[in-house]
Amino acid sequence: MRNILLSLCYVGTNYHGWQIQKNAVTVQEVFQNALFKVFDKIVDIKGCSRTDAGVHANMYCVSVKTESNIPCNRLKLAINKFLPGDIAVNDAIEVPIDFHARYSCIAKEYVYKIWNAPVMNPFLYGRALHYWYPINIEELNLAAQYFVGTHDFTSFCTYDKRKSQNMVRNIKNFTMEKNGSLVTMRVTADGFLYNMVRIMVGTLLLVARKKISLESIKDVIESKDRSKAGPTAIACGLYLNKVFY
Amino acid sequence: MRNILLSLCYVGTNYHGWQIQKNAVTVQEVFQNALFKVFDKIVDIKGCSRTDAGVHANMYCVSVKTESNIPCNRLKLAINKFLPGDIAVNDAIEVPIDFHARYSCIAKEYVYKIWNAPVMNPFLYGRALHYWYPINIEELNLAAQYFVGTHDFTSFCTYDKRKSQNMVRNIKNFTMEKNGSLVTMRVTADGFLYNMVRIMVGTLLLVARKKISLESIKDVIESKDRSKAGPTAIACGLYLNKVFY
Repeated sequence: MRNILLSLCYVGTNYHGWQIQKNAVTVQEVFQNALFKVFDKIVDIKGCSRTDAGVHANMYCVSVKTESNIPCNRLKLAINKFLPGDIAVNDAIEVPIDFHARYSCIAKEYVYKIWNAPVMNPFLYGRALHYWYPINIEELNLAAQYFVGTHDFTSFCTYDKRKSQNMVRNIKNFTMEKNGSLVTMRVTADGFLYNMVRIMVGTLLLVARKKISLESIKDVIESKDRSKAGPTAIACGLYLNKVFY
Repeated sequence: MRNILLSLCYVGTNYHGWQIQKNAVTVQEVFQNALFKVFDKIVDIKGCSRTDAGVHANMYCVSVKTESNIPCNRLKLAINKFLPGDIAVNDAIEVPIDFHARYSCIAKEYVYKIWNAPVMNPFLYGRALHYWYPINIEELNLAAQYFVGTHDFTSFCTYDKRKSQNMVRNIKNFTMEKNGSLVTMRVTADGFLYNMVRIMVGTLLLVARKKISLESIKDVIESKDRSKAGPTAIACGLYLNKVFY
């Protein structure tokens, strides 16, 4: 038995997220169908996380256990032959048998893209948030620094009350840059709560619109109250960008 | 009567080119429908050129004659409200009444994008040619310089024999650059023959594959023989990038 770590890239527009669902097409379903064509049997796969409908991935990791002895590089090409154009395998490497794409992960980086201009860029339609009020990138960068460090992120989580969950996460860095009209926010943490990046982005945009002060991000974190944070920014601006092991 | 010059941007993937056709949806049709909703009547519009099915435009110019006195900036926003996400109006300015988007044009710039790696980038699927053989960018840049200047481009035209046509064009510059795996070719001329950019790209890729020498581009031009040039590179890599007046 071998354990292969595959690194995928996908455009999330046409999918209801990663995880298999009964009534919607997902990346996992399409990916498993491609694996079935390569291996001619159902294989055990583990994804590195769930992603929401419409969220993209520049790097999404999957570990696959298989008896097959196809070399990694040929495996990569073989799977790609059976994938549609909006999903691709960029890398395949052999990992220890106890490696798990989700539980072995030590950190993830997400990117959030915003097209900040009066008219949306058609090439980024479904691939970035269209936001037309002015963004002062230096101010938002300062605001984002309040998120960095170890905090209870209850205010920034769409919360399933039935679950008791540890809401503490460590954000290692949160930076942003503006190139022309494109704002790219980049955040790395040991883990993320459900909708955490999108709610942090929605809250930063409240700062951009002067609805709250940049210093009040600190108070929103301390309140541990979802209603104090901003709205959940739309899914299509979000990209899982790197997975660290 | 006013004459308004509109600058459009569109993703060509979902359209059978610019020009209205009976049996296929085109950018012009969708755009005219949006104008009809704004002006509540059919207006006379002139596009700057035809584009093929699947070709994109970062800048496509249309002149529109109208009795309406809506200010240009409001007109831009009004039209955008009625356009789908893959088409947008970026600019609207008033021009002299005898201005014609096609005949007043003095030069155009096209961009051709190539994803040069073994695995295609899903975010460029339908937006770039996937080409996996190595590209020596310095060599292709040298090869491309043979196109620059005033030549008879018969070898680089999908030719309608019923038409007698002046096949001489002046290429002002032809440059290319590589950023990571993305090759971007950029060519400016006073005008282009049918499929001219795509056939020049197809011929440059013969040089990349060592099927012809870079110096032989000169011979292919002089032969005035379409069969001596390379294949027509696929439409989806091509972008109308700038229109000069």
